[in-house]
Amino acid sequence: MYRSNNCGELRSGNIGQSVTLSGWVQRIRNLGGMTFIDLRDRYGITQLVADEGVDEKVTEVIGSLGREYVIKCKGLVLERTNKNPKISTGDIEVQIQHIKVLNPSELPPFTIEDETDGGDELRMKYRYLDIRRNPVKNALLLRHKVAQAVRRYLDSQNFIEVETPFLIKSTPEGARDFVVPSRMHTGEFYALPQSPQTFKQLLMVAGMDKYFQIVKCFRDEDLRADRQPEFTQIDCEMSFVEQDDILETFEGMITSLFSEVAGVDFKQPFQRMTYSDAMAIYGSDKPDVRFEMCIRDLTSIAKGKGFGVFDNADYIGGIVAEGCAEYTRKQLDDLTNFIQRPQVGGKGLIWVKIDANGDVKSSVDKFYSSDELLAWAEYMNAKKGDLMLIMAGSNAKTPEVLGTLRLEMADRLNLRDRCKFAPLWVVDFPLLEWDEESSRFYAKHHPFTSPISTDIHLFDSDPAAIRANAYDLVINGVEIGGGSIRIFDRKLQHQMFKVLGFTEAEAEDQFGFLLNAFKYGAPPHGGVAFGFDRLCAIIGGSDSIRDYIAFPKNNAGRDVMINTPSILSQIQLNELGVMVKPKE
Amino acid sequence: MYRSNNCGELRSGNIGQSVTLSGWVQRIRNLGGMTFIDLRDRYGITQLVADEGVDEKVTEVIGSLGREYVIKCKGLVLERTNKNPKISTGDIEVQIQHIKVLNPSELPPFTIEDETDGGDELRMKYRYLDIRRNPVKNALLLRHKVAQAVRRYLDSQNFIEVETPFLIKSTPEGARDFVVPSRMHTGEFYALPQSPQTFKQLLMVAGMDKYFQIVKCFRDEDLRADRQPEFTQIDCEMSFVEQDDILETFEGMITSLFSEVAGVDFKQPFQRMTYSDAMAIYGSDKPDVRFEMCIRDLTSIAKGKGFGVFDNADYIGGIVAEGCAEYTRKQLDDLTNFIQRPQVGGKGLIWVKIDANGDVKSSVDKFYSSDELLAWAEYMNAKKGDLMLIMAGSNAKTPEVLGTLRLEMADRLNLRDRCKFAPLWVVDFPLLEWDEESSRFYAKHHPFTSPISTDIHLFDSDPAAIRANAYDLVINGVEIGGGSIRIFDRKLQHQMFKVLGFTEAEAEDQFGFLLNAFKYGAPPHGGVAFGFDRLCAIIGGSDSIRDYIAFPKNNAGRDVMINTPSILSQIQLNELGVMVKPKE
Repeated sequence: MYRSNNCGELRSGNIGQSVTLSGWVQRIRNLGGMTFIDLRDRYGITQLVADEGVDEKVTEVIGSLGREYVIKCKGLVLERTNKNPKISTGDIEVQIQHIKVLNPSELPPFTIEDETDGGDELRMKYRYLDIRRNPVKNALLLRHKVAQAVRRYLDSQNFIEVETPFLIKSTPEGARDFVVPSRMHTGEFYALPQSPQTFKQLLMVAGMDKYFQIVKCFRDEDLRADRQPEFTQIDCEMSFVEQDDILETFEGMITSLFSEVAGVDFKQPFQRMTYSDAMAIYGSDKPDVRFEMCIRDLTSIAKGKGFGVFDNADYIGGIVAEGCAEYTRKQLDDLTNFIQRPQVGGKGLIWVKIDANGDVKSSVDKFYSSDELLAWAEYMNAKKGDLMLIMAGSNAKTPEVLGTLRLEMADRLNLRDRCKFAPLWVVDFPLLEWDEESSRFYAKHHPFTSPISTDIHLFDSDPAAIRANAYDLVINGVEIGGGSIRIFDRKLQHQMFKVLGFTEAEAEDQFGFLLNAFKYGAPPHGGVAFGFDRLCAIIGGSDSIRDYIAFPKNNAGRDVMINTPSILSQIQLNELGVMVKPKE
Repeated sequence: MYRSNNCGELRSGNIGQSVTLSGWVQRIRNLGGMTFIDLRDRYGITQLVADEGVDEKVTEVIGSLGREYVIKCKGLVLERTNKNPKISTGDIEVQIQHIKVLNPSELPPFTIEDETDGGDELRMKYRYLDIRRNPVKNALLLRHKVAQAVRRYLDSQNFIEVETPFLIKSTPEGARDFVVPSRMHTGEFYALPQSPQTFKQLLMVAGMDKYFQIVKCFRDEDLRADRQPEFTQIDCEMSFVEQDDILETFEGMITSLFSEVAGVDFKQPFQRMTYSDAMAIYGSDKPDVRFEMCIRDLTSIAKGKGFGVFDNADYIGGIVAEGCAEYTRKQLDDLTNFIQRPQVGGKGLIWVKIDANGDVKSSVDKFYSSDELLAWAEYMNAKKGDLMLIMAGSNAKTPEVLGTLRLEMADRLNLRDRCKFAPLWVVDFPLLEWDEESSRFYAKHHPFTSPISTDIHLFDSDPAAIRANAYDLVINGVEIGGGSIRIFDRKLQHQMFKVLGFTEAEAEDQFGFLLNAFKYGAPPHGGVAFGFDRLCAIIGGSDSIRDYIAFPKNNAGRDVMINTPSILSQIQLNELGVMVKPKE
């Protein structure tokens, strides 16, 4: 027997018991002839102690120990004289009677402490050591809890977890598919799913009514900082539902999840906001509504007063930074530099300060009188001591830049509280997106997304104005999930394909088996998918998903621990019937 | 709103209520002016009724309906005059007030009934229709329940579900790996995991203590009748455990599972049997112990009596078929033909009948006296009316053939009751397997399987005799899972690699990152993996796993519904940097 207890469970109630513990040596201290060993396992740390009078064999073993050695120890649970209220076992210690090294350890390449001296690449290479650290271990424990809670909730709501296949079919538009050569069918390939979208719709045709799956998905794309080539979704679909049914069901899930795992209580229903409001008021389709600082449209009151920059702009808008009237020239220049960074793409920034006396000072006071500026202030609800930040430009771009500035100001003002969670649904997304380069519409969500019924008449006159029965769940400015009501009517589906520029043959080629399935009684249905990695990170209060994934890949899509991807032997390639294309 | 209730929930308590139902038309009957529609969804069937006096519009819609049409119906719940006790809603019917076709259906290619007229290929091609049938739907519901029960149990035992990566590394011995070309790293490949074996061991090094995952695994091999290229495992690993800890934990899981999902109660501990006993007594390493019919070794009492076939054999053994003394010549010839089939590989079959009077008759009564044959009968515990079936041959092969004959006789005698479940652990498997062709040992389980400590001294003298700390769970003659205690001691690991003929460099190349991890304090650990598809099939009382997989592949590894694998466009291949090898 390796242990009678784990390292996190002994309490004062166990005093006097003889116990056996196993774990890792976290730390050894020698204090006046007494030796203290912090023994660690997943469950906690227990202090082992050997005093001077201990058996010689014990002393010898203790002398040989180093950090991260795996040991087994038998001893007596004693009350501690110096209790440690910081750890759950802090009332007791175990007096060592027998001790045995189960496995020695070389010196780890970085310290196994909450704050480590290991850099990112080193931690990734020795991920199995990194996971021993509390922050990573706790992130994985949280992920486990979230997964179990999601399943319990959806199971209680009559959802059925169905595993959809991983070896599926690549589509001509599947440029980002990972593919898998078939050995049995030389020259043919499977593809890994970017999502189980078509399969979950088939399950609705199959009458499964309520489906879910926590499932790996794959996308072979250039990786931005916080993307992974394989990622996990909570994928869901329901039949005989309208948008409200789905929003209610899944805000129920999110509420139950946050309550159970994070002790956070949400009020239902969640806030709902149209895409066009989100863009106008927050300059983003995923607004962070933990704080106000809404964008106000100043076009009608600020335009046409002889200030060329404003007069030539389609749109003028601004935000109010509360209590920032004291901003220095340097701070204001800083903000201008911020919005002019290429990834933000702003041009100029106009500021108006209202000092403590109610007097205004502005970068445009040559063009606008105090009264005019005070009228802006009143319109924007700016008070004494506040700073108005104003931009002008195109209707599409300027609110977005203002939205980015809004988040930046919130960061500077500490308005984005990690312990506060503000969920909302963004609804009524545009159905279509115009691509200038190829001069055609793309489906913003996917080609089976249903338009809002009252907008269907716009298919011929103004397709860009059609709103979709599509929705995103946003928490704290992060898109956590999204979905749509699907088209189940064949005539409407044909209209959709037509506007997307698909010929019958192309539609048949790409979506044939789904269209075929729809001939045999497809129910009205819709669904949603949540980014599971991201959801866990949000609940854990982290910006990065990486610590919530046991074995993540780096930004180059590489697992540096096992060193993959890697080359294959010629024999293996021959067997698969593929060749590596020679470099040009 | 599409429905106020589903099609399985209305009871007599709902009589008088106005309800809205949606679902599929299972059947329409016209009886003396009354029309009855069976409306179906996942939850059940509800009878809709329209009598002669109904609104003309309703009549018109009803007249347009066909099987599998999706409809929505509003109506009043009435008490049925002819109650149907066979269905849960059999006390009521819904009087149609409004009815609407949500989606019409073409005539399905096979009938959506429990017994269908569709063949296997057709059902696979239209799997989304096949799933509407109760047998398949219920199999998937059962699978869901099993998965949730497994997770609940393991969660309650402090196991943590950790997702391991799917894009991993191919090993030189990974001849059956599916591989995935990397677009970002041209010429390099990922591999899909055949199992998360190394990752779960790394998680033990990482201190996760108790890990599980219900996870897809992939193996690119010629498919036997009931294998799939992608299959699901319940994969588990524990630290600081010995074999007994693992067997106890997982017979707990299996017991809880069968009790919860199948209402079957198992007694713990499960029966345990050594591999050598299983081979000797049942001629199989996965004995079906629902029935006795044990193999008895007759070598010492039947050899050396002048019957050449026996005298030249290393081994003589037999089984007793109770009550089969009346078997005809034809029936006995049949059995001989059965064991002589190439896949069984037997040679001859000797029979001895003991008739109702206790007289013996045998195919070898030229060589053995009645007394001698009666002595066999006594030794084998054969009674009046029984038939003894005896074979001779090599020590290794003959018990196996007897084992196959034993199962065949059990089938003929209906001894393999589908409602009876007999779990057992087979333990003490051989550590190594000698391969004649390559003249070397292979690890029977895998190279990290630990030998039984008392057998370690055999590494130099008799490696073939070393028993492993490995175990299989067998239910009703089917291997449900298996695992082992792992080697965590580096010296022992080197001994193992040596006996397997790995050079240091080869071991480093194949298992480098795991061996490297073991340097930093690997705990003693062990685990088990269960075939989830097979487990579900067993609980569901089925021989075939296919109905327990939502979208299975056929024997050629092909998904005939979506038609994959398939060829890729040249553009896509170019982007991936791979070419299809021209056929020779």
